[in-house]
Amino acid sequence: MDAAALPTRYCVELPAWVLEEVAEVPEVLPSYEDRMALVNRLASRNHKEGNGGPFAAIVVESDSGRVVSVGVNNVLGSGISSAHAEVVALALAQTAVGGWDLGAAGGPARELVVNWRPCVQCYGASMWSGITRLVVAGDGPELEELTTFDEGPMVQDWAAQFEARGIEVVQDVLREQALEVYREYRDSIAAQDVIVYNARGTSTGGA
Amino acid sequence: MDAAALPTRYCVELPAWVLEEVAEVPEVLPSYEDRMALVNRLASRNHKEGNGGPFAAIVVESDSGRVVSVGVNNVLGSGISSAHAEVVALALAQTAVGGWDLGAAGGPARELVVNWRPCVQCYGASMWSGITRLVVAGDGPELEELTTFDEGPMVQDWAAQFEARGIEVVQDVLREQALEVYREYRDSIAAQDVIVYNARGTSTGGA
Repeated sequence: MDAAALPTRYCVELPAWVLEEVAEVPEVLPSYEDRMALVNRLASRNHKEGNGGPFAAIVVESDSGRVVSVGVNNVLGSGISSAHAEVVALALAQTAVGGWDLGAAGGPARELVVNWRPCVQCYGASMWSGITRLVVAGDGPELEELTTFDEGPMVQDWAAQFEARGIEVVQDVLREQALEVYREYRDSIAAQDVIVYNARGTSTGGA
Repeated sequence: MDAAALPTRYCVELPAWVLEEVAEVPEVLPSYEDRMALVNRLASRNHKEGNGGPFAAIVVESDSGRVVSVGVNNVLGSGISSAHAEVVALALAQTAVGGWDLGAAGGPARELVVNWRPCVQCYGASMWSGITRLVVAGDGPELEELTTFDEGPMVQDWAAQFEARGIEVVQDVLREQALEVYREYRDSIAAQDVIVYNARGTSTGGA
């Protein structure tokens, strides 16, 4: 095999507007609501920028409220299908921290804050990352109904499975604000402004 | 927030020995067994190199048998918890192809070949990648029993869920050879030569 022809490296990079957006946000976000408000804001801008779906996530030091990393869904921007907001935020946090375990002994507890229950890929990605808490805006069929994204086959007791592994789940933080972002996105789909990418093929626009 | 202090980019790179290893392999791998033999070979070397768990994956053009990318579990090597073999192989293939959809119209059908049923993260990652076939060495509790890796909460009908999304599943290709790699790995754990990383914490060595 011609080894020199094989791809050997992949990279995912935040779009420049993300840094613009966070520059206006305080250094420390004390409450769950403060944290989720940033996530919803990034999610809303992300789909308008054409970078990917209306999804964002941040990794935060649970006690101090310091933001370790921010991520947005970057599938369209990077051309890499795993680059969902959670995977991006977690990998960037691990890059900053210098290791794969965000809950390593001696370091602060870290949590992932995301604007809905993760899809099946990001469910696993969150589970293996070392976070000790997952904070979500909501759970339920509204995300799939509004955005038409397939979230994949999930076990019924998904939250209990996190708790059984030492990961606390906090739900329904700024739920209505998150739904508002999905409604915006739905309206963009109807106006044929965006691409919805799912397993095996792309559906563009239309209802 | 000090935007300049935020991490903005993450990269995952194959270890150099992977290219050495594939240099001896034919350009085209006609049968499932040819493909899985390469995967098992990379998986075996991966854990011995200390790069990650005993897992590898390749993306192959289904009809021609041409290898598009090879991946190994690179969690320890990269410090990024999502860098499982499947995620690495898929992202490298997408980098080579120039887009997130490995099943895009006009291109060849592509398949992911991996040395066991994917964990819950990689289950989703495979589903969203555009592959049209998943080839696995096996399914069942042996992987978790032998390696002590947690594979996460999976739905019972995981294979049917792939098929429902247009992704064919081929099982039990060189199963015994894959189990032999896991047995080697188990013996390394017993000898305290390796690190097993799971949700919320690392267990090193011992039974």
